[in-house]
Amino acid sequence: MTFLYFEDFAVGQKYLGSERFVLDAAAIKSFAAAYDPEPFHLEEAAAHRSPALRGLTASGWHTASITMRLLVRSALRPMGGILGLGVDEIRWPRPVRPGDELRVETEVVELRASQSRPAHGIVKIRTTTFNQANESVQFLVSNILVEKRAG
Amino acid sequence: MTFLYFEDFAVGQKYLGSERFVLDAAAIKSFAAAYDPEPFHLEEAAAHRSPALRGLTASGWHTASITMRLLVRSALRPMGGILGLGVDEIRWPRPVRPGDELRVETEVVELRASQSRPAHGIVKIRTTTFNQANESVQFLVSNILVEKRAG
Repeated sequence: MTFLYFEDFAVGQKYLGSERFVLDAAAIKSFAAAYDPEPFHLEEAAAHRSPALRGLTASGWHTASITMRLLVRSALRPMGGILGLGVDEIRWPRPVRPGDELRVETEVVELRASQSRPAHGIVKIRTTTFNQANESVQFLVSNILVEKRAG
Repeated sequence: MTFLYFEDFAVGQKYLGSERFVLDAAAIKSFAAAYDPEPFHLEEAAAHRSPALRGLTASGWHTASITMRLLVRSALRPMGGILGLGVDEIRWPRPVRPGDELRVETEVVELRASQSRPAHGIVKIRTTTFNQANESVQFLVSNILVEKRAG
């Protein structure tokens, strides 16, 4: 396993070929019971009555959390781990349903200095989460703090 | 319980006095093992070695998920539930540590029409998550889809 320093990143780099993660209805309901207890994430009947969803749908925060797992276990391995400073955008263009198999693709979109931490830089990445039909179910733009080589 | 329609929202409305949620080290490690398996979210020793964290720290996605739970169980109750379209920003200004007790405050910051769903409007909210010392640990700006009154 190769760990990456700030100097190893360049705008346009892509990290493809992540692991895959399958969600079933039990996992969707269990996450929702803990963190997003809305009827349309917990019960098929309530979910079918929701005109915007029309069926059991994973919490967007569940999709975001699975995305983080897939990212941590991808080839994007900064020295010291993925240390998130924040998120610039999340969109959930399509529902995640029971049985969906998720994977991620990530692209480096910006590099900048850290004002408060001169030994680190900030890498902005765009991560798209796809289902098994290669439809995007989440767009995420986030900023991570990455160590520079000792110099 | 009163359910809110789009017409009931106004810019500047605040939802205070949420429930509180306490995290212990076991909960931090358990969420991280599932969704953010970085050593600094899993092991005290590794966390103390991280110069940016200096101790076991909850995953930002764990904080975001707890925030959603507190929001769903707050007085902000749109008819049909909180249906998130996406997030405009998340920042994690301070680490969340074992033993922290979190609560949220939410403010309505913008109202707009939904182009694709004329029976709904979009409410933009800013939710701040505080610890027991009243320090902010997360800022979140998100957009939710809310039904209009029939008619």
